[in-house]
Amino acid sequence: MATVAILGASGYSGQETLDRVLRHPELEVVALGSDSLAGEPASALDVRLNGSLPRFAPNEQALAAGADVLFVCLGHERAAALEPPPETIVVDLSGAHRLHDAALYPAWYGFEHPHPAALADWSYAVPELAPPAGRLIANPGCYATAALLALAPLAAALDPASVVVDAKSGVSGAGREPKASSHAGFVLENVSPYRIGRHQHAPEIAQALGFPVCFVPHLLPVRRGLLATCYAQPLEGDLRGLLEDAYADTGVVRVLPAGVAPELARVQHTDGAELGLFEDAATGRAVIVCAIDNLGKGAAGQALQNANLALGLDETLGLRLTGVLV
Amino acid sequence: MATVAILGASGYSGQETLDRVLRHPELEVVALGSDSLAGEPASALDVRLNGSLPRFAPNEQALAAGADVLFVCLGHERAAALEPPPETIVVDLSGAHRLHDAALYPAWYGFEHPHPAALADWSYAVPELAPPAGRLIANPGCYATAALLALAPLAAALDPASVVVDAKSGVSGAGREPKASSHAGFVLENVSPYRIGRHQHAPEIAQALGFPVCFVPHLLPVRRGLLATCYAQPLEGDLRGLLEDAYADTGVVRVLPAGVAPELARVQHTDGAELGLFEDAATGRAVIVCAIDNLGKGAAGQALQNANLALGLDETLGLRLTGVLV
Amino acid sequence: MATVAILGASGYSGQETLDRVLRHPELEVVALGSDSLAGEPASALDVRLNGSLPRFAPNEQALAAGADVLFVCLGHERAAALEPPPETIVVDLSGAHRLHDAALYPAWYGFEHPHPAALADWSYAVPELAPPAGRLIANPGCYATAALLALAPLAAALDPASVVVDAKSGVSGAGREPKASSHAGFVLENVSPYRIGRHQHAPEIAQALGFPVCFVPHLLPVRRGLLATCYAQPLEGDLRGLLEDAYADTGVVRVLPAGVAPELARVQHTDGAELGLFEDAATGRAVIVCAIDNLGKGAAGQALQNANLALGLDETLGLRLTGVLV
Amino acid sequence: MATVAILGASGYSGQETLDRVLRHPELEVVALGSDSLAGEPASALDVRLNGSLPRFAPNEQALAAGADVLFVCLGHERAAALEPPPETIVVDLSGAHRLHDAALYPAWYGFEHPHPAALADWSYAVPELAPPAGRLIANPGCYATAALLALAPLAAALDPASVVVDAKSGVSGAGREPKASSHAGFVLENVSPYRIGRHQHAPEIAQALGFPVCFVPHLLPVRRGLLATCYAQPLEGDLRGLLEDAYADTGVVRVLPAGVAPELARVQHTDGAELGLFEDAATGRAVIVCAIDNLGKGAAGQALQNANLALGLDETLGLRLTGVLV
Repeated sequence: MATVAILGASGYSGQETLDRVLRHPELEVVALGSDSLAGEPASALDVRLNGSLPRFAPNEQALAAGADVLFVCLGHERAAALEPPPETIVVDLSGAHRLHDAALYPAWYGFEHPHPAALADWSYAVPELAPPAGRLIANPGCYATAALLALAPLAAALDPASVVVDAKSGVSGAGREPKASSHAGFVLENVSPYRIGRHQHAPEIAQALGFPVCFVPHLLPVRRGLLATCYAQPLEGDLRGLLEDAYADTGVVRVLPAGVAPELARVQHTDGAELGLFEDAATGRAVIVCAIDNLGKGAAGQALQNANLALGLDETLGLRLTGVLV
Repeated sequence: MATVAILGASGYSGQETLDRVLRHPELEVVALGSDSLAGEPASALDVRLNGSLPRFAPNEQALAAGADVLFVCLGHERAAALEPPPETIVVDLSGAHRLHDAALYPAWYGFEHPHPAALADWSYAVPELAPPAGRLIANPGCYATAALLALAPLAAALDPASVVVDAKSGVSGAGREPKASSHAGFVLENVSPYRIGRHQHAPEIAQALGFPVCFVPHLLPVRRGLLATCYAQPLEGDLRGLLEDAYADTGVVRVLPAGVAPELARVQHTDGAELGLFEDAATGRAVIVCAIDNLGKGAAGQALQNANLALGLDETLGLRLTGVLV
Repeated sequence: MATVAILGASGYSGQETLDRVLRHPELEVVALGSDSLAGEPASALDVRLNGSLPRFAPNEQALAAGADVLFVCLGHERAAALEPPPETIVVDLSGAHRLHDAALYPAWYGFEHPHPAALADWSYAVPELAPPAGRLIANPGCYATAALLALAPLAAALDPASVVVDAKSGVSGAGREPKASSHAGFVLENVSPYRIGRHQHAPEIAQALGFPVCFVPHLLPVRRGLLATCYAQPLEGDLRGLLEDAYADTGVVRVLPAGVAPELARVQHTDGAELGLFEDAATGRAVIVCAIDNLGKGAAGQALQNANLALGLDETLGLRLTGVLV
Repeated sequence: MATVAILGASGYSGQETLDRVLRHPELEVVALGSDSLAGEPASALDVRLNGSLPRFAPNEQALAAGADVLFVCLGHERAAALEPPPETIVVDLSGAHRLHDAALYPAWYGFEHPHPAALADWSYAVPELAPPAGRLIANPGCYATAALLALAPLAAALDPASVVVDAKSGVSGAGREPKASSHAGFVLENVSPYRIGRHQHAPEIAQALGFPVCFVPHLLPVRRGLLATCYAQPLEGDLRGLLEDAYADTGVVRVLPAGVAPELARVQHTDGAELGLFEDAATGRAVIVCAIDNLGKGAAGQALQNANLALGLDETLGLRLTGVLV
């Protein structure tokens, strides 16, 4: 059994990480960090959590608990300031360690990175595309995960200047803290593009692909789930073959048969992904659609996958891979 | 007072057309066509409709009622077969008369056009871009309206090969007839791309712009409202100036200040449109966002606008131009 | 023209009140109070509001602007502390002046009422049931409005001990301030009973009916609209006749024909109400269902109605009485 | 391994039953009945279903497949006409065998029961209240399940004449067949009471409790989940104690601590139930709230539970008892 601490355990991604850890046969929770719930029992977060779990502790204390695996579910700036404990596997679900170039942080994240030299120690890992290379793991953003699953295997076969990613996410992607943009009175009967041309997942997509793309996220009146509709002009090659080869050996990403579009219902509450490939007859454009659960493959599920790989375990342990059938 | 007949008055767009006609000071309903409700009082459609309206009649009978203005809210194939009565202003809300080239109908609409020669007599009219030229008016599709409001004034300033239209619509855009894709059990907690690369609004966008675009529609868990996010590489010119000039004289289309995104809430239940213009820093792409109500500016509102112009009236008579403030 | 000031103009009910005032031919806005937006132009609230409106001012300053009519859209405790200016018509949309018995405030509202003696000067007015008696008007709560429209005309014909009100409201009823319970991640795919047995609208219903009822509100994944399903054992009398008589002369409340249930869609974005009367065959229980828009008849619409009556104007001036037909 | 056939496997409840059977270690699917999909592979229903499952067969053929366990997910009238095969465990998810008194069928279900004498052979089973007594099992309705979980343990302690059940269900409760009332254009931004005073689950509630209750169902803009808010005047006794005792030994039904309300999110996609008990201070009324997933504990989950009991297995085999934590 490896021991686990979760920092920011009372946010959406922290809580979903806890969900996966509780399902995991080889992991044991030793610390739940939450500054707002410090001192409270786990049931203060959810009435289903019982007495076998530790009480919430301040994040600093959870960090120092000596766990073998640390899941960091804090805000970007807070996470950037952390000193990763030695020997520990650290999976950071924030954006604090995703960009190799520290100079990008002020423009995209609004703060100067406090540990620029250390960024090189972190590996950015969508496991199906590039498994983690060490014990410090930058877990990709939800939008970036969907865009990269759709585009990375095809990158050499597409005109880089033509790529557009129009993504749509459920509201849980914006975190649990109440704000005007997550108020149901704003979200219901609405669809909102936001941070047009300046969302912080754009540079990590560019870094992973090797070229910039035009990326615009939209907020949906949906609790969970994310759909990325990706557009690109093909150069040459068998796009379907490239996609199918890329995901031939994974139980996590499913390339759908021709003509079948990904559906949120089939990936919601799971850690899987669906991909569909289409051609626009009028323009020859390839349209690649990816559906994930923003809290699953887009956050906690991928975090567990990365932790499993770093621990040398089967990468799917603890994951939710099958949703209900309806 | 001009007299009005509505064919297909019990569908969504027929009912919304009736709504606008009832608000119109110069129009009077003389026939309500509906094959399914024939013989029933208007209140069978909506308990708010009272005895001053005629009973529903079969569509054939309503067509023959001799009205001055005929709104056709029938299915595409049914509408294509109609013989427009002489002297009558006909506004066809279906796609039956939108494409000038009859050869396109089999591939895009699934039927051979029964009156190919007559297509030249119909004018395709988004009034702000091209007012109707005669008494036979092909009312544009909801997606096409949004895409054209966003793109037509900029067409010469954009690289045609770069244009992508990712559009999202509320479920009322698919009509009132129950089907699997409009079942709330499918629509809720979902967002679905559909008819990828083969939606019938693509050729009318291409016809109006003069070049094909890559267009993908998505179904939203929203009752009303449509958002088109349009992407294009600018060639040169002042895009904002072009947009503002194009809509300087209309009370129907509002170009929003820099940094403000269109919002469904502000156009729902109205016949207006909102446009926002953004730049994607990473790629230089222009992002033009248009919001309309698919049943308002996307259907009944525009139909009334076109009828008003054909009648020589103020184009906004009967229109709903201000929604509630919240 | 009468002059108007709105305190709390940037909240949901303040903004909806402004909407109705702007539609009103005999009212003119002279002050918009908002502590959070003080100094900002009206367009800071909504891009559709233009330069003819005054800038937002601190609420204290708006209160002192000398308007003929003052709409108070503040929190309960803040509103209770106000000193109503002399000669002014004051419509308080909060609960601060609804209960005649000051002793009820600590238990139901959580504060000691600062002006207990003045409560007798305020009249609690659902205009169809009891028009305002003076210039100080306590505008009823949204749930109370729906419950009273359904029950007050029948009160003498029902067993008081049998009355249950199960009410369901859209999320705008909880105000614009973001909180955990209005977060879309909580509201979507959910329905939540809340303040069971202790919601502050219960005592105003009891005060108006003359007996307490069992009232439980629920939060719906809906932006606007409120449905109250009211259950009671009839004693005797023609319930339908009583309802129809009570609302025979109003254009605001519609009693639906037997077998037709009220629908949110027909009252959303309006200031009207719908009532349906049913009988439960198994138990003989009367089921009276009322639908309103919580921000319309449940707040701003009724506030305007009350102000109109106090000003001696037609009560429907400025009201939104017809929604779209679909 | 016991063999299973599902009739009506392509509807919502059939598909959810298949979901649970596929998770079940002791059950094996030998026939999938669906008249509409007969001849198609299982993947025609859902792309996740693979080649190890039999193709869909006509329901008559699936009925004759000789399975050990038959799940009947057909319409009421169709199910009533079936001749249950000898020796087979039959779990009927329709209402065809729930009422012992055949005379009730014409009024509540609209058809004369074809096998009135055989009704006595079927046992109506909410397992926590009354496990199935034989091999012919009438699986309770979703609304009835929620109402009975809330009320049955308290029945002797409540005034029977005072009981009101106001229930709210997600749209999947109405089945997969598209109709006007399940059209998302009707369901979104709406809440609709329906079949007021005449819903077919009322008589099965009355039969199980021993007295009639006033029951009104409402349709919510929610995909899955059902909340029943039950009101009753207590006579005497410790209601909380009665509830806790009733469910002390089950892992399926959870009685929540005082002050905590059931939440759809915690039971959606699961076969569990949550109960909350409250008191209305003003009237002394007990308010018992039950949340289930209408397709889980309200249909397929309970069907599996009943089948497990009839097979002598652990009742929770195959059930989904833990949802995601967020």
